[in-house]
Amino acid sequence: MRPNNRAADQVRPIKITRHYTAYAEGSVLVEFGNTKVLCNATVEENVPRWLKGQGKGWVTAEYGMLPRATHSRTRREAASGKQGGRTMEIQRLIARSLRAVVDLEAMGEMMITVDCDVIQADGGTRTASITGASVAMADAFQSIVESGKLKASPMKGHVAAVSVGLLGEDVLCDLEYVEDSAADTDMNVVMTEAGKMIEVQGTAEGEPFSHEQLLDLLAVAQKGIQEIVTAQKAALTD
Amino acid sequence: MRPNNRAADQVRPIKITRHYTAYAEGSVLVEFGNTKVLCNATVEENVPRWLKGQGKGWVTAEYGMLPRATHSRTRREAASGKQGGRTMEIQRLIARSLRAVVDLEAMGEMMITVDCDVIQADGGTRTASITGASVAMADAFQSIVESGKLKASPMKGHVAAVSVGLLGEDVLCDLEYVEDSAADTDMNVVMTEAGKMIEVQGTAEGEPFSHEQLLDLLAVAQKGIQEIVTAQKAALTD
Amino acid sequence: MRPNNRAADQVRPIKITRHYTAYAEGSVLVEFGNTKVLCNATVEENVPRWLKGQGKGWVTAEYGMLPRATHSRTRREAASGKQGGRTMEIQRLIARSLRAVVDLEAMGEMMITVDCDVIQADGGTRTASITGASVAMADAFQSIVESGKLKASPMKGHVAAVSVGLLGEDVLCDLEYVEDSAADTDMNVVMTEAGKMIEVQGTAEGEPFSHEQLLDLLAVAQKGIQEIVTAQKAALTD
Amino acid sequence: MRPNNRAADQVRPIKITRHYTAYAEGSVLVEFGNTKVLCNATVEENVPRWLKGQGKGWVTAEYGMLPRATHSRTRREAASGKQGGRTMEIQRLIARSLRAVVDLEAMGEMMITVDCDVIQADGGTRTASITGASVAMADAFQSIVESGKLKASPMKGHVAAVSVGLLGEDVLCDLEYVEDSAADTDMNVVMTEAGKMIEVQGTAEGEPFSHEQLLDLLAVAQKGIQEIVTAQKAALTD
Amino acid sequence: MRPNNRAADQVRPIKITRHYTAYAEGSVLVEFGNTKVLCNATVEENVPRWLKGQGKGWVTAEYGMLPRATHSRTRREAASGKQGGRTMEIQRLIARSLRAVVDLEAMGEMMITVDCDVIQADGGTRTASITGASVAMADAFQSIVESGKLKASPMKGHVAAVSVGLLGEDVLCDLEYVEDSAADTDMNVVMTEAGKMIEVQGTAEGEPFSHEQLLDLLAVAQKGIQEIVTAQKAALTD
Amino acid sequence: MRPNNRAADQVRPIKITRHYTAYAEGSVLVEFGNTKVLCNATVEENVPRWLKGQGKGWVTAEYGMLPRATHSRTRREAASGKQGGRTMEIQRLIARSLRAVVDLEAMGEMMITVDCDVIQADGGTRTASITGASVAMADAFQSIVESGKLKASPMKGHVAAVSVGLLGEDVLCDLEYVEDSAADTDMNVVMTEAGKMIEVQGTAEGEPFSHEQLLDLLAVAQKGIQEIVTAQKAALTD
Repeated sequence: MRPNNRAADQVRPIKITRHYTAYAEGSVLVEFGNTKVLCNATVEENVPRWLKGQGKGWVTAEYGMLPRATHSRTRREAASGKQGGRTMEIQRLIARSLRAVVDLEAMGEMMITVDCDVIQADGGTRTASITGASVAMADAFQSIVESGKLKASPMKGHVAAVSVGLLGEDVLCDLEYVEDSAADTDMNVVMTEAGKMIEVQGTAEGEPFSHEQLLDLLAVAQKGIQEIVTAQKAALTD
Repeated sequence: MRPNNRAADQVRPIKITRHYTAYAEGSVLVEFGNTKVLCNATVEENVPRWLKGQGKGWVTAEYGMLPRATHSRTRREAASGKQGGRTMEIQRLIARSLRAVVDLEAMGEMMITVDCDVIQADGGTRTASITGASVAMADAFQSIVESGKLKASPMKGHVAAVSVGLLGEDVLCDLEYVEDSAADTDMNVVMTEAGKMIEVQGTAEGEPFSHEQLLDLLAVAQKGIQEIVTAQKAALTD
Repeated sequence: MRPNNRAADQVRPIKITRHYTAYAEGSVLVEFGNTKVLCNATVEENVPRWLKGQGKGWVTAEYGMLPRATHSRTRREAASGKQGGRTMEIQRLIARSLRAVVDLEAMGEMMITVDCDVIQADGGTRTASITGASVAMADAFQSIVESGKLKASPMKGHVAAVSVGLLGEDVLCDLEYVEDSAADTDMNVVMTEAGKMIEVQGTAEGEPFSHEQLLDLLAVAQKGIQEIVTAQKAALTD
Repeated sequence: MRPNNRAADQVRPIKITRHYTAYAEGSVLVEFGNTKVLCNATVEENVPRWLKGQGKGWVTAEYGMLPRATHSRTRREAASGKQGGRTMEIQRLIARSLRAVVDLEAMGEMMITVDCDVIQADGGTRTASITGASVAMADAFQSIVESGKLKASPMKGHVAAVSVGLLGEDVLCDLEYVEDSAADTDMNVVMTEAGKMIEVQGTAEGEPFSHEQLLDLLAVAQKGIQEIVTAQKAALTD
Repeated sequence: MRPNNRAADQVRPIKITRHYTAYAEGSVLVEFGNTKVLCNATVEENVPRWLKGQGKGWVTAEYGMLPRATHSRTRREAASGKQGGRTMEIQRLIARSLRAVVDLEAMGEMMITVDCDVIQADGGTRTASITGASVAMADAFQSIVESGKLKASPMKGHVAAVSVGLLGEDVLCDLEYVEDSAADTDMNVVMTEAGKMIEVQGTAEGEPFSHEQLLDLLAVAQKGIQEIVTAQKAALTD
Repeated sequence: MRPNNRAADQVRPIKITRHYTAYAEGSVLVEFGNTKVLCNATVEENVPRWLKGQGKGWVTAEYGMLPRATHSRTRREAASGKQGGRTMEIQRLIARSLRAVVDLEAMGEMMITVDCDVIQADGGTRTASITGASVAMADAFQSIVESGKLKASPMKGHVAAVSVGLLGEDVLCDLEYVEDSAADTDMNVVMTEAGKMIEVQGTAEGEPFSHEQLLDLLAVAQKGIQEIVTAQKAALTD
């Protein structure tokens, strides 16, 4: 039995709060159960040096975790003088996922940076970050449209993500920290709202997994992502 | 006239929310108007190397600002590879202020680290940090007492802080960002709940200030801090 | 038509040279066509601090690219003062892949570090690294057995990896650099010699991919990995 | 009784040697008793990037301590790879203090950097630095006037600083290291030659201090600064 | 008796393999016995910022050692976040040596960077690097001539280097690692193919050396360098 | 004609001031004309980790240059976050030179660190540093003997250094900055007081140099070092 009597294929209660802070063009607090991530999207009217003069836009992301987002305190990356490998891996994943649903050509020479900062971590922070960042980015593009600098948002649809895993015989959706630590295989799936795949990252922490198990994991992920997309859409129509 | 029709000597509405996150021994979201700082206190049963074996405890603090806490995005310190001078200055001030109200001898070989992370910045983040950190630290000490590791909290009382400033002829209390940027003199005052001074830091950004102006600033600060201490006490009796 | 008239599901000529350098306990030059990676496995009789006293071993990996392994020179990471996100991501993947085929309990308090340094890069450096590192690690464990410190190698079998991708309608195996740059989807698959999955990382660089495309990619990867495992086994019986 | 029979409100013998090194536009060795700081002012005909094109000048400062300026050796900051929090705090204070007596508009697009390097440290290095830097800056501005690039020096007067402290019942001026370590409260006061305040930084290291004690400290500081300004003026008329 | 029965003044077998990797404009694997260094020369059509607009070219070098080039593993400099003093010393030496045989004026605003990466280290890596880098640079200049961007190579001749040392009474040429560790004096000599000196760096590790010993070392070095230049010339006529 | 009518083989006026600062066990200001270096020797009763338990001592050195020691300001290494290649090269040379005249076995498990900080730079700062550091180290060993921790100083004699160079046809001793910048060959020679060589580092900045020129340079260096050793001895008998 999962914590809170969740069914194996059930995602945690999802809460998406827009306009969470006052200054960012898009600001979303996304909650998957006890996992809480603040996603702030910033619009800037310039692009990285290597992209200048090509008439295209860029979307990037940064990820951070407050030192006490976790059960025991982790060292502040600013104090240790560098971002760890896990942080870099995650922020690269978030950025790729967001770019996959944006028409960069249509965006013009603008840049959106989404900062995903984990306030509280109970598993699935990277998939929650992608999910919340998609909504924050939508608000940021909306602000550009409202300012008259673009006629229409270059977003092609939402991107959402969920983690799935194998715990013994069970295929679980949206793992909490205690489940994640015990799982044999952990998989992060990023999809468009249309159900197409953007990223699939499955890792055997314990036993290797079979082709059949992979298919089971994907099926559960697809179902979960549909629920998450529904929550994204509901938040944007509030 | 100040924004929101505040009187010159009036502090902004203060809100102190305890237990804001789930894992820290003390977790406080402190709000001074639009300035919002999350203060998480962590208890660890060891002390820095240079203090080992002396039977004394230690209290330290770290300060950070989310990249989009401000009107325009500031670079993430973890990405730039070091904490800036302003950050270091502020976290040293917070730590000294907290230690001033703790009996380190009575604390035993334990350490409390208070992480002050600014979610939204509208002036006075360092003084809000000290104010919130004091409450978070009180909760952290309470958790140690409840665990039986200490018989009584080694805190001697609250510490609270406020910024005051000279804007033209006016002596203002608890400056917002727009006021702070325009002020000639900016002063941060840290006091015990008994009204004794722990830190006084006054800086002439424009014209130097006179002895009389200093006295005026201190008077306004003292009044403001009394209100802030009242809010701290109210929060702890909830 | 692919370069060198390769069939879509064909891997490049694989060459695995053992004992490539003189001092490492395992030293393998692995070549996938023009991609050449030197994999040196080092045995040390200690473990990382956080693992001490648990009687278990550890396997880790580091990845680097010589500045002119690529068509144009890339900046030396030692000179720029940090390893980039791509480097960190890859070395974490290599290390996880290697650990998945080692019985760390049976290994005792020893550590193996495999350094994968890319001499020449023509696509697929991370999958070539995993493939070569598995052989270098096998030699390193053999040296421990020969020294009498372990009775048997704690390796449970080989681990091999290949990249697959979607280029237009085609599902390609073992992409060269020019193919990789043009591909819509790039997937790295890591498997045991028994055909079970250790890592699956698929990324849509252009269009998102469908469930069916994912299955096609996996089928091609599985076939490719069988050939690669054959090459690994052949190298070890030389 | 203080060391060397100093009266409580007496500053140590002050010695200001101009033209101490040969190349800097202003070069001053300032001595407060055994505290010796070399202050070199450099003139450059450009301003920081963020100030370009505004027709204004800039004054900044850097602070360092030779490793063996102190009783036991402190680690060289260049070797440890970063400047500590104390260093950053001090150099920001010096720079602010200097800018407070300069008309940056009248200065034009020029920059002065004052390097304050502590040769020997016996308490009060930051206040000695400000005092010496003011004289070095005056010489630097004089060199600009002599070169014909400015018609008159944009300095509005001297800036001088002193530390004061509470040691038990005593209010002491210009504390030596042994006094400073024992003091309950340490205050650094920076004033213009006209006796107006630029910075007041008081810190309770032990017991918090009262309003009356603050007034006592300020009175002693003001008297000390008058003597220091006299020494500055004497040095400049040599 | 030396290892492999070498005579005291005999260099190890030298092997110079051109076109070792595929992409660099000059790519040389140089072997002095068991010491193996890969020297890749990169041509870029720009110069460092400080040289722009002067119509002159620049030659620089970087040096690195694979972590397991040595008997025990050394920490990867990219991971430790900086290049060590030894690395910096060596790469500065290589660069100076190369520039000494190039007419930078005739080169025009181009830059050559030679990366010397040690694959296997058995003493004399810096002198092998210079020797191999000279050949790689010759190939790189040849490629510029072939591209039509220069009419003739601006190289004035080869530069070659050897280490010599005093081991007890013996004057040895081209020391292996075991000899180098035991030597009292170690000297690196860099010469033009015409036998003129570019660098002489002699260090007494144990006993200081006399004027006569210095002359003996230089004589042995000169003889060794003649053999090395012969090998360089032979390689370039292949 | 040289500046100040110096003869080609004449060293600049040398001044060695002992006890220049108050706290270091050895503190020497060494002046070679306008070049001024402060050499502070620190005694510590421990050795680096890799030397512990062997009963031997260690001598090391660090080198730094005040930002405005030079004609134009150079960036502070502590601010740029690392020591440059030139700094590392020089401090390694100083340390090797000092160790060459110390019996590390006789020294016991103690360490001496000599900090050489350049106050003013007019050529020859590394050779002046070695010369001054030798005297500071002698004083530091004397302080150990006086404390009773060693019966006799483990120094075997002085070490002194000078720079020599080829400027056109002339062989010059102890080059000033303007001479050094123009020289074709620059050589630093480090010798014992007995005239034996510890380091010889000759570099052709322009034309390569011949064997005869090398001999001429060494002869001039030897004569200069004799004068320098005389100055060292005189300073120690004051």
